[in-house]
Parts: sequence; structure tokens; C-alpha cells
Amino acid sequence: MNNNPIGIFDSGLGGLTILKQVRALMPREDLIYFGDSAHVPYGSKSKQTVMEYSINIAKFLEAKKVKLILIACNTASALALPAVQRAVKVPVLGVITPGAKAAAKKTINKKILVLGTESTVKSNAYPKAMAKALSVKQQACPLFVPLIEEGLTDGKIIDLAIKHYLEPLKNTGIDTVILGCTHYPVIKKKLQRQFGAKVRLVDSATEIAAEARALLSSKKAFKNCGKATGKLQIYASDSPERFSKLAARIIGGKLPKVKVCRL
Amino acid sequence: MNNNPIGIFDSGLGGLTILKQVRALMPREDLIYFGDSAHVPYGSKSKQTVMEYSINIAKFLEAKKVKLILIACNTASALALPAVQRAVKVPVLGVITPGAKAAAKKTINKKILVLGTESTVKSNAYPKAMAKALSVKQQACPLFVPLIEEGLTDGKIIDLAIKHYLEPLKNTGIDTVILGCTHYPVIKKKLQRQFGAKVRLVDSATEIAAEARALLSSKKAFKNCGKATGKLQIYASDSPERFSKLAARIIGGKLPKVKVCRL
Repeated sequence: MNNNPIGIFDSGLGGLTILKQVRALMPREDLIYFGDSAHVPYGSKSKQTVMEYSINIAKFLEAKKVKLILIACNTASALALPAVQRAVKVPVLGVITPGAKAAAKKTINKKILVLGTESTVKSNAYPKAMAKALSVKQQACPLFVPLIEEGLTDGKIIDLAIKHYLEPLKNTGIDTVILGCTHYPVIKKKLQRQFGAKVRLVDSATEIAAEARALLSSKKAFKNCGKATGKLQIYASDSPERFSKLAARIIGGKLPKVKVCRL
Repeated sequence: MNNNPIGIFDSGLGGLTILKQVRALMPREDLIYFGDSAHVPYGSKSKQTVMEYSINIAKFLEAKKVKLILIACNTASALALPAVQRAVKVPVLGVITPGAKAAAKKTINKKILVLGTESTVKSNAYPKAMAKALSVKQQACPLFVPLIEEGLTDGKIIDLAIKHYLEPLKNTGIDTVILGCTHYPVIKKKLQRQFGAKVRLVDSATEIAAEARALLSSKKAFKNCGKATGKLQIYASDSPERFSKLAARIIGGKLPKVKVCRL
């Protein structure tokens, strides 16, 4: 048994979708979320910079005595996972491997598409995490995050942006699509419509939460306590007002007061 | 006479439009540009954070012995100008006052519109810099920067984004519009079409360059040398590859090798 909290971090808010899944699977665990809103977005930044930001946050979470760190951000997972694992002593999971595994399981014709930020796509982290027998295409969709953060998840602009990135991939026979950025599940229905009902979408939030549970289970490190829902603490590196407003837009629920912590 | 360089900084690349204007007006001056690409964008970040980033850059430029600092970024000018002026000993100019003055001169019916980032609009820096007799509306256009940075300056998506922000302002009788973000001049023609040919657009790049020249002239601080074009040094706080590629897209010219400097 281990009553220490689970730490989750993201470049900003998108990782709250993962927090939600972790809460659903392991409701009693205490959680600490860190959103790096002073440095968001990571998706257009270099490996060196994303590594530096990620290590600082992991060390902050380690100092808060977390028993496990989940890197919710696809870009940080793609660019910084080994560096973070070297920098701290607690186990660290990223979203790439769970997402890649799930896609490999779901595909029938072995044709997979990864949607992600510029840096995630450039890193080739997803193709590298998958067997060579699979055919993996990638597409960067840099406009999705600003559109989602502005709440423009309906209407003509998002429809056109989806068409802009994905229309050229029609008739490529892809049967499985990895939503390789924590923001993308917000527009999952629209993406499903674009690809058609038969294409399987893989949402890394579900996958990493299951992996986290399996890891804690194997280490017998679940929290030992009653049936109350675990505590939740949220930190952001910039203005909590904007963070809270956007967070409500993304997860649609009530959040505890966001604490500011400049790293 | 003063042979020290002029320092110019921006959250990213947009300030290169100002560098271009400064070069055109004072071709012999040596220039140092700093693009804070590790922290870009500033437009959605808090005053505290933008102040911290801006002061660090200004101190870096001061250490490089600049004789004048131009804050090319509207958000940094709006949120951090007084703090930067207190933090360094060299004179510092922001883009807000020159832009506001130029708009006040150009308007006939005293109805002015400011387009800017979320933080610039929220700060009310432009309305505060203008006489009360003027009617000043503001509109945040957060999608313009990501669209311009992705090179989507033509086509249906940018047209729809322009309509999304500006159609509600039709028939408000505005005769002057301040392009309150260094990226916006890139889509100047489209904005002019949206507002109609009679509406005057104010581009702060032109205005701050003129103000800088006036200041150096009044202090007799121009460079004392032959007719050769001044030296240009460019620093960025993140990956120079991406910076150089996007810079070419924005100013369309050749740049010296970008040096990386993490502050």
C-alpha cells in the first residue's frame, strides 16, 4: 500500500482529460496536476527546451512525494520521457507507448495514422514505438489546439481546419487513428465523422490511465483508505484565472482552486 | 554620437516587421534582435509572467550594451513597459504609445478599433493611452497568430477567422484600426478588404521606428560611421531552425545565423 499521490503533468490543460480518466479508474487516489501554462504550448518547441521544462516539473512533483508521474502531454512524452526518467527516482509513464500499443491492437489492416503537434510528429516517437510490420502515417495539426482553447469546437472554422489537414489522407485505407495530443479528444466526434464510422480512434487518455492502474497494482501501491474520493491539487505556472476558465471548458466540471507555482 | 547597437525584442518572430522598419529608417545602426521563442506566445499569458520574461530579455540586451531598447511585442509593451523601464538604465520604447498617437492623428470621426491578443485587449493599454474624447473599441483575435505562423495567410480558413472576429463590428462606423500585434500586418490586405478601403489601418512597426529615430536624433546618439549597412545579430531562446524558417516566411529576406540563448 502507498498513500502518496499520483502526479500528472501537461504543457497546459489538455492533460485534464487524462486526470479525468485516472479519477474514473482509481477514484480514491490523491492526485496532483501541474499545467505548465507559463510555457504552453510545447508542440512547436525544441527537444532541449521541452526536456528542460519537463524535468523541472517532474522534480517539483517528486518533491511533493508522488509515487508515480504520468506525462499527460504527447509532446513531452515524445521528446522528454527518457530524460525525465533519468532525472527522478519515481516511476514515470508517458502517453506514447500506451497509445501505440492500443493502436497496434485495434488495427486490422495495419494502417495507422497519428495526429499530433509539429514536435510530436517530427520526433517520430509513435512510429518508433510500433512494430515495423505496421504502416504508420503522421499528420501535424497545429491549428487544433488554438481552436479548441478558444472554444471554437463547432462551426465552419474547425470543420475547414479538419478538412485542411485530413482531406488529403482520404482513400489511404487507414483503419486506426491515434489522437496524439491531449486536446484532440475534445473534437473526437468531428474527427470520427471525417474518417467515417469504421475507423477506430485511439484516445491516449484511456490507455495511460489503464497502464497506470496496472503498474500500481503490480507494485501493490494503491492507496489504503476508505471509500472517499481522493484529494485533488492543481498547480499552474501562470495565471490561474485563465487556467480555471479554460479547464472548465475542457473537462466541464468543477475544479479546486488552482495554485500558481513558477518553476 | 553613439556607436552602440539598438536592441529589439519580441515574444517571437512578429517583431521582425519592426526590425525591418528600423533598418529602413536607420540603415547604418547595428541591431540586436531577441525572439523569446521558448516562451512564445505572450498573448495568452499573465502580466506577472510577461513582466518576468520581458525584464530578463531587457537585462540581456543591456549587458550587450545597447543604447535603446524597443519592445516590439504589443503584449509585452502593454503589460511590462513600466517594469522594464525601471529594470534597466537605457531608454525603452514600447509600441503602444506610438500606435495610439498615430491612430489619434488619423481618425476623423474619433472612432477607433484596436485588434490585439487576449492579454493586450484585457490590459486596456491602448484605450488608456488615448484621449477620452475618442471612442475606442477593442477586439481580441487569438487565432490570427497561429494561422499566420502556420503560413495560412490565404484561403478560406483565414477568411472565416477574419469574419468571425470582425463581422460583428461592421456598421459601427469605425474609421481607424490599430493592428495591435506585430503579426497582423502580414494579413493587412485581407483586413483592409474586410473593413473597406476608407478605413485607415495603423501599423505600429512604422510608428515605433519613427519614434526611435526621433529619440536618437534628439540625443544625438546616431552611429558615427560610413555608409555601410549596420550589423545585425539575432538571438532566439529556442530552436533556431524553426525560428529561421518562420522568420523567412514573415520578412521574406535572408537572415544571419540565429544564436540560441536560454534566459
